Amino acid sequence: MTTPIEEDHMAADDAFGPIRLYMSMSLDGFITGPDDRRGQELGAGGWRLFDWLDHRHGDGASGQVYREATATGAVISGRRTFELAGRWQGDHHDGVAINVLTHHLDPDDRPPGSARFFTDVGVCAAEARAAAGGRAVLVHGAGAAQALLRAGLLDELEIHLVPVVLGKGRRLFDETRVELRQVRQLTDQGVTHLRYAVERAEAGRPR
Amino acid sequence: MTTPIEEDHMAADDAFGPIRLYMSMSLDGFITGPDDRRGQELGAGGWRLFDWLDHRHGDGASGQVYREATATGAVISGRRTFELAGRWQGDHHDGVAINVLTHHLDPDDRPPGSARFFTDVGVCAAEARAAAGGRAVLVHGAGAAQALLRAGLLDELEIHLVPVVLGKGRRLFDETRVELRQVRQLTDQGVTHLRYAVERAEAGRPR
Repeated sequence: MTTPIEEDHMAADDAFGPIRLYMSMSLDGFITGPDDRRGQELGAGGWRLFDWLDHRHGDGASGQVYREATATGAVISGRRTFELAGRWQGDHHDGVAINVLTHHLDPDDRPPGSARFFTDVGVCAAEARAAAGGRAVLVHGAGAAQALLRAGLLDELEIHLVPVVLGKGRRLFDETRVELRQVRQLTDQGVTHLRYAVERAEAGRPR
Repeated sequence: MTTPIEEDHMAADDAFGPIRLYMSMSLDGFITGPDDRRGQELGAGGWRLFDWLDHRHGDGASGQVYREATATGAVISGRRTFELAGRWQGDHHDGVAINVLTHHLDPDDRPPGSARFFTDVGVCAAEARAAAGGRAVLVHGAGAAQALLRAGLLDELEIHLVPVVLGKGRRLFDETRVELRQVRQLTDQGVTHLRYAVERAEAGRPR
């Protein structure tokens, strides 16, 4: 049986699915409000970016996008996001591999469930792709997205663009210039889901 | 005769049209590349944001949006944009009023054509609205947009969202938090035109 979701998984390549960032973002490019930390994971007022998830189980575009995200075959996460999310208690969805990019490994720290730590972005991405078995790989976190972009390993961005200007907070993008190609746009209540293919990234100076 | 464009002009109010920013913006919120100045008005590489104008005379969404912009009844511009644009030689389009927001008036500097200087954002907006005769007022420039937003006088934003991450340049938004409502989305080659109604702006600290 070929469903739209299965077709989506196979879009990038016959053998491997795309590595795709899913991220809610304000019109001014913020992915959290200011002062994001444990206990206030989304920053002050940052909950606003996730209102659209109220419609994640609906029949509309937000339902479609959410179902696609949770049908991915592996997860790549930045360490910071992984910790703020309580390590997903080792299971992000359906027990798929959770490959966590980190700068420092602590041999005494064994992550739970299907989570594993990686310090090399290339190895992290390659193993996620292999684990996904032809399905897409879901990327979580700005740090992971930036590292993958700089390494030329991020294939797509699914931006949930939320009609708010936050003014302050954590930004999705750093100083890397990235040429994109918009490949899909879906609008639902309070959000537009924009999918971009990454054409070319040119590393700039980090901030 | 009632055309879609005339209806558009009358959308905000029976007597006055909306004050609406038209702005090309990268996915990361930049409206120029870095180092924008006379002779390099769009900043380094900032021309990328205006590729969509190649389709401004077409039958697609970009043609529609461009025709709407050039059918507005008055212009409000920041001083910086006004100067970088060579003062439009006194005629932005069809001889409509060009109200230029500036911090300092020089009595010896008489702007050309239909351009006039204003130091008070409220007076500038009220006179532009009156001059527009029920049509929409086109806003140019990040400075003018921010001043109008802080004063609660910007009704709408028409963002030409371009599929590129510039990484550096001049940003559209400052630290003012603004709640928006998306009212239209049109996609054409290399751009998505997103129209937002301003619901509420809360002034923050200037950067």
